[in-house]
Amino acid sequence: MSESRAQKNGLIKEITAVSNQHIKDIRALERRKVRNQTGLFMAEGLQLVAFALDAGWEAETLVYAKNIKTHELVEKVASKVYAKGGLILEVSEQVLSKLTHRDNPQHVIGVFRQRYGTLSDLATDIATAGGDMVVAMEGVKDPGNLGTTIRTADAVGASALVLIGETTDPFSLEAVRATMGSVFHIPLYRATSEEFLTWRSSWPGEMVGTHLKGAVDYRKVKPRDPVLVLMGNEKSGLNDAFANACDHLVKIPMDGRAESLNLAVSTGITLFRLREGKLGL
Amino acid sequence: MSESRAQKNGLIKEITAVSNQHIKDIRALERRKVRNQTGLFMAEGLQLVAFALDAGWEAETLVYAKNIKTHELVEKVASKVYAKGGLILEVSEQVLSKLTHRDNPQHVIGVFRQRYGTLSDLATDIATAGGDMVVAMEGVKDPGNLGTTIRTADAVGASALVLIGETTDPFSLEAVRATMGSVFHIPLYRATSEEFLTWRSSWPGEMVGTHLKGAVDYRKVKPRDPVLVLMGNEKSGLNDAFANACDHLVKIPMDGRAESLNLAVSTGITLFRLREGKLGL
Repeated sequence: MSESRAQKNGLIKEITAVSNQHIKDIRALERRKVRNQTGLFMAEGLQLVAFALDAGWEAETLVYAKNIKTHELVEKVASKVYAKGGLILEVSEQVLSKLTHRDNPQHVIGVFRQRYGTLSDLATDIATAGGDMVVAMEGVKDPGNLGTTIRTADAVGASALVLIGETTDPFSLEAVRATMGSVFHIPLYRATSEEFLTWRSSWPGEMVGTHLKGAVDYRKVKPRDPVLVLMGNEKSGLNDAFANACDHLVKIPMDGRAESLNLAVSTGITLFRLREGKLGL
Repeated sequence: MSESRAQKNGLIKEITAVSNQHIKDIRALERRKVRNQTGLFMAEGLQLVAFALDAGWEAETLVYAKNIKTHELVEKVASKVYAKGGLILEVSEQVLSKLTHRDNPQHVIGVFRQRYGTLSDLATDIATAGGDMVVAMEGVKDPGNLGTTIRTADAVGASALVLIGETTDPFSLEAVRATMGSVFHIPLYRATSEEFLTWRSSWPGEMVGTHLKGAVDYRKVKPRDPVLVLMGNEKSGLNDAFANACDHLVKIPMDGRAESLNLAVSTGITLFRLREGKLGL
């Protein structure tokens, strides 16, 4: 997939064989191991790919069914990718269906390079951008929860998301889909637990963690900006080392018989509450 | 599965053949059509089944691997089901793996009868129970969103959930799993769009709908109890007929580049905000 980069303009190839190596390479991106090795990932759907290009991402490869090239937005997307030196694959419907497992002739796939920022630059990065909120998630396991949280963080105006420890891959198909495009807006950072806890002491603002045993109602805390919001794993929540590193441990009071909230929901409730007064109509 | 009901105590059967009719019947409950025809559904997992029994639901059938009968909670669950006249299936691991598609020897499956309340009784039902909030969802499509919203509604202390129009099945495996047991706590009602809109005029409190074009910040509305919170479909939101039927149309202000929030997240944010002052620590 790197050959296109060597040229000024992109390369257009027609592919009708499912066994084509380009197609095999793209299909392999469904596996996390291959995504890690190549540093690439897939975004499925015209809207999502158009979003990515609008946000300044460059597609390494663009795939679409040959018979929909006349679609106006597809053509626009294709010329953008071509102009930046990307590889364009015009494929048969049969090939496309192998890639997408979907029965949608309008389908388009973009292959992009994963981006992670460097944790030591985060405070500077967000200060430069005028940001005042960062979300950090420890050990998140469900791709839907992670993708949805990236979408929520984007909607609330957070500046970045930090993934701590062993987490699900934000660049999996399912996670990317759940972000509804926000994966192309919100910069991602990652760290081991140790790296995060060390780095955290240099954070200029305060850190708020949500915890079922939190002492403070989430509606009553007023942390100093820039605020770092720390969420624990779906099952076990924050462990002691993370809980102790927080300036505030908050909980969401519950009234019914449910023992806890879904992670993406509790993150949404917490983030929107912390932004009180900053979200104008 | 009805034979057990004829006896005072339950029936215990040992099954080692995947082709057994009981097993086929239970597997068939993965299909919505069969769930509709039989009025039954499956709950997977010991915790979930125990939850259901604690909440007063009776299992028609309980399935577990013969080799885990000595597990204390399994034994407790089994005696409860047996005492109520349920059918107990002690199966081989091979049979269980056919049913669960999982590789978990601790796995337990309960078959329960679906419950829907009658819409015309809803106002009386919740008044009797001292409730002051009901959630209604029009055309919800994603089982994860529906299950998560049932869980959130339970956590916020809502009294019931109304499903309007063509929606995903709250009794599918995926939806039930996402409720984390709350499907056994929150009474469900269902209605066509016409039935709902007609019934709604008799509702004693006010109805709040969330809408991207809503005129009022969700933080500023104070609806009269009992409040009916109406959420639209994932893609299209509330259509005009539903929007016009609301006393208040609210929106959640957003700050980033995301165009909208995930349905379960926006429902969570709205519900928790509307319960302000009612959620004590």
